[in-house]
Amino acid sequence: MGKQKIFLDKLSRIFHIRNLLVRQALAECLGTLILVMFGCGAVAQLVLSGGSHGMFLTVNFAFGFAATLGILVCGQVSGGHLNPAVTFALCILGREPWKKFPVYFFFQTLGAFLGSGIIFGMYFDALWDFGQGKLIVVGQNATAGIFATYPSKHLTLVNGFFDQMIGTAALIVCILAIVDPYNNPIPRGLEAFTVGFVVLVIGLSMGFNSGYAVNPARDLGPRLFTALAGWGTEVFTAKSYWFYVPVIAPLLGAFIGVLVYQLMVGYHVEGEVRDKAEQEEESVKLSSVSTKETD
Amino acid sequence: MGKQKIFLDKLSRIFHIRNLLVRQALAECLGTLILVMFGCGAVAQLVLSGGSHGMFLTVNFAFGFAATLGILVCGQVSGGHLNPAVTFALCILGREPWKKFPVYFFFQTLGAFLGSGIIFGMYFDALWDFGQGKLIVVGQNATAGIFATYPSKHLTLVNGFFDQMIGTAALIVCILAIVDPYNNPIPRGLEAFTVGFVVLVIGLSMGFNSGYAVNPARDLGPRLFTALAGWGTEVFTAKSYWFYVPVIAPLLGAFIGVLVYQLMVGYHVEGEVRDKAEQEEESVKLSSVSTKETD
Amino acid sequence: MGKQKIFLDKLSRIFHIRNLLVRQALAECLGTLILVMFGCGAVAQLVLSGGSHGMFLTVNFAFGFAATLGILVCGQVSGGHLNPAVTFALCILGREPWKKFPVYFFFQTLGAFLGSGIIFGMYFDALWDFGQGKLIVVGQNATAGIFATYPSKHLTLVNGFFDQMIGTAALIVCILAIVDPYNNPIPRGLEAFTVGFVVLVIGLSMGFNSGYAVNPARDLGPRLFTALAGWGTEVFTAKSYWFYVPVIAPLLGAFIGVLVYQLMVGYHVEGEVRDKAEQEEESVKLSSVSTKETD
Amino acid sequence: MGKQKIFLDKLSRIFHIRNLLVRQALAECLGTLILVMFGCGAVAQLVLSGGSHGMFLTVNFAFGFAATLGILVCGQVSGGHLNPAVTFALCILGREPWKKFPVYFFFQTLGAFLGSGIIFGMYFDALWDFGQGKLIVVGQNATAGIFATYPSKHLTLVNGFFDQMIGTAALIVCILAIVDPYNNPIPRGLEAFTVGFVVLVIGLSMGFNSGYAVNPARDLGPRLFTALAGWGTEVFTAKSYWFYVPVIAPLLGAFIGVLVYQLMVGYHVEGEVRDKAEQEEESVKLSSVSTKETD
Repeated sequence: MGKQKIFLDKLSRIFHIRNLLVRQALAECLGTLILVMFGCGAVAQLVLSGGSHGMFLTVNFAFGFAATLGILVCGQVSGGHLNPAVTFALCILGREPWKKFPVYFFFQTLGAFLGSGIIFGMYFDALWDFGQGKLIVVGQNATAGIFATYPSKHLTLVNGFFDQMIGTAALIVCILAIVDPYNNPIPRGLEAFTVGFVVLVIGLSMGFNSGYAVNPARDLGPRLFTALAGWGTEVFTAKSYWFYVPVIAPLLGAFIGVLVYQLMVGYHVEGEVRDKAEQEEESVKLSSVSTKETD
Repeated sequence: MGKQKIFLDKLSRIFHIRNLLVRQALAECLGTLILVMFGCGAVAQLVLSGGSHGMFLTVNFAFGFAATLGILVCGQVSGGHLNPAVTFALCILGREPWKKFPVYFFFQTLGAFLGSGIIFGMYFDALWDFGQGKLIVVGQNATAGIFATYPSKHLTLVNGFFDQMIGTAALIVCILAIVDPYNNPIPRGLEAFTVGFVVLVIGLSMGFNSGYAVNPARDLGPRLFTALAGWGTEVFTAKSYWFYVPVIAPLLGAFIGVLVYQLMVGYHVEGEVRDKAEQEEESVKLSSVSTKETD
Repeated sequence: MGKQKIFLDKLSRIFHIRNLLVRQALAECLGTLILVMFGCGAVAQLVLSGGSHGMFLTVNFAFGFAATLGILVCGQVSGGHLNPAVTFALCILGREPWKKFPVYFFFQTLGAFLGSGIIFGMYFDALWDFGQGKLIVVGQNATAGIFATYPSKHLTLVNGFFDQMIGTAALIVCILAIVDPYNNPIPRGLEAFTVGFVVLVIGLSMGFNSGYAVNPARDLGPRLFTALAGWGTEVFTAKSYWFYVPVIAPLLGAFIGVLVYQLMVGYHVEGEVRDKAEQEEESVKLSSVSTKETD
Repeated sequence: MGKQKIFLDKLSRIFHIRNLLVRQALAECLGTLILVMFGCGAVAQLVLSGGSHGMFLTVNFAFGFAATLGILVCGQVSGGHLNPAVTFALCILGREPWKKFPVYFFFQTLGAFLGSGIIFGMYFDALWDFGQGKLIVVGQNATAGIFATYPSKHLTLVNGFFDQMIGTAALIVCILAIVDPYNNPIPRGLEAFTVGFVVLVIGLSMGFNSGYAVNPARDLGPRLFTALAGWGTEVFTAKSYWFYVPVIAPLLGAFIGVLVYQLMVGYHVEGEVRDKAEQEEESVKLSSVSTKETD
């Protein structure tokens, strides 16, 4: 095993990337890949098996726990956002620098693109079998919905926009509570599991309108993949250019989520901590003054 | 980012509320909003999709994990009761002052009202589509049951009262065990998850009669909302004025739950701790006596 | 609140039971009550709703998490066995005194009896509605299976005995691993959750033959209740006196479980710890010898 | 109880095995037995009940939580691999010696063999009842699929190979993240639960093609058992000798998983730790130099 150790150590030194942002981007990419691979894989299993090997609940579980696993894989390196809306919210709050936003957005979308590619390969036979030799975007035997989201028949664009906005706002409120440095309600190390539960619950209660993308990268990456893989540009034009809703609305929703959480909880716990810190400073000053006076 | 930091700090100082009870009330409001938004959202998804995007189990999961998330969001500030019956039980035990009860009750109900409003907006198109242009309280295509609870056909008022009483008593027994300062069985920080499991299990086993409200605010808030939003006063008069059962019975159930837990477990673990404390005091006195004697 | 504090303190002193075994028996009783109330409640919800409000999976979840909650409520006081087979296994291993076995058995059965009584009351209207005015043990519209277990049509007594034995052995192997003082694989405080998962998994994989009682108290208590509540003595005579199988076989299974775990894992981790302890003792003796010699 | 203590202590000394590898092999055997007993038990319950007591989701839950329990039972002794592909991955990374690989492989397969034997015994009556007196490998009333995996009709061998490879790679990436000594994202003691979630998610999203064996032992052991127990050699020849795919492909998948994780996350967190260590060493040397100079 001596030789193996030396060889592995050499490999480790060759492939070690020292630039932090590159490493974080790679980690986000892998994390989002895992999210989309497992999540869209569950949709594929549901659709392609005709319901025998899945149901909407299994998709909810898969996306929830896939978020958990994605965060576990990359969280220590990149923070495990997996979602440009989350990065956006943290930038608004000044907890991440703004330059990270475009980088993370790109690599999250790339990861989602690759993740849907893996599922395309894994269910290649089943996809052609189900579509009877065609890759269809809308209608019976449609398979594009496995990868990107499309609205239900009853949904207008306005309601769809609201749906994505509220869904993301709910996600952000819960995530902010979980990672708030002044209001840390759960034991360290369980954040990933809790975020998984948030994604699960959003799927259980907000998934009927248009499949709860609530994540620009998770929707845009797979949509790009389907456009290139054979479904064609209809994936962008379908349902009155629906594709831009899950890209724009979640960013607005992130802003609303930040606002609601900060106004109703965040500013107050933060303020309390600041008040205490200032009082202590004050008393230190006073005591130093009194010390001087007694000199 | 310097400018952003200064701006955010200014915002934080402007919106920081210093009155503790107001902050707690706001937090309870947000927590109950989250509970009802996710919980009733899951019922909406089940009903409006005609069962394709949900089942009774998904509603149980949603209410359970929504309780977890609601508690996580507000627990550090307000205790995360989300339920007047819980506040009532803690007041009976002297762990919360009685003046909190009406304040919490009001803001919990307000949060539930707002939460159901969000779901109303989110599923606006689907609601009108499902009811074919009408908002119906009882009968086919009824949608009022998405928000407030209504009894099953087989249920008499007496049995329904007993159902809500027992359900709440079971909830309170489990919650008291989880938060008992003398019998803390779980690692700190996991209370919210455990309470979520309690709510889940109650839904799995006590949900058939009338939908396990076991929470006056969760039922009254959404019922008020439906009355105003277009379903009309029938939401109060339907099923022989059922509406007061999930408001009154849970408070009685909370009393029974306190009684059962304290008599069977609580007083004994408490007593043991007190006995030890008194023995130590005793021995301290004795030793001080003997110390004096040896003087 | 001063008066309330004094009053509550007085109550606490009046009802405080000092005898440990009585307190433990009461706690086991309440824990098993919770297990059976939630577990059989879920079966009731499944059967009485005709499948609209439950499925076999919901029963599995309910029994699993009900075990968790039952253990959380009473575990600090009584150990949270909830099952005479568990008590039996711990007595075999010398971790509990044998005198506890009959006491726990009785109070666990009493708790199960009371728990099924609560479910009988809660679903009183639904039971009469479902049975159309009759309480039937076997056949269509039978409701006795809500409370105690009955074998499937395909099952012979021999296979049924083996089923209960293996199920309980699997339960005991997992529980012994979880609570083994020399092999504690999980963080303190999570035992109850892990045992809940064990019960859930047993239900998912060993529930088809006869409903996985794997617990004499959980089966005998509710069976007694149904005999008294109107189903009559047929609950004992049905299916060639099946009732004794879930009482006897689990105890045998507990013995097998202890054997398998100890031979394959337990004795070795225990032995390792003992070896170390003896070596240290040895070296202490040696060093004391050498110390003497150097005198 | 004095006598019992002495007797138990004697037993413990008789059966205590001191050879570490033998103990580890026994523990792996018991762990894999538990995985297969609960996992295949859930498939048996689903198939034999005709869907009334299970669905694909319950199989996913059972395999996931069975992995958790298997790891909990043996993890402290043997590491809880339960899967030759996991052992293989850890050998590649130099974290386990290569000599363990054949030993673990054999005992994992033996455990899987025994686990499927227990399920065969437990559902003996149900198996004969379902197959109407025959044990069938492929076609209607087939029961061989309860134990080993067989591909769906739509699946070609190439796609099947890819399916098993990707599934195992996904498993290994997640497991490496969970147990990476430089990137430990979860609290100690929760590894087993997290691995269970990984197995669950793989089942939810990658189970439709051929039943997600992703584990040579879990597939080969039960297949051997069915060959001997009456299904005959057809279990090996069926579906163009499918049996070798879940034995070979997972090992390749493990290699890919190691590669992906190390290149995208592993080498960088490892390198960072090494860099820090070397810097400290450097500064120690420098300071010792400067200390000498000041002499």
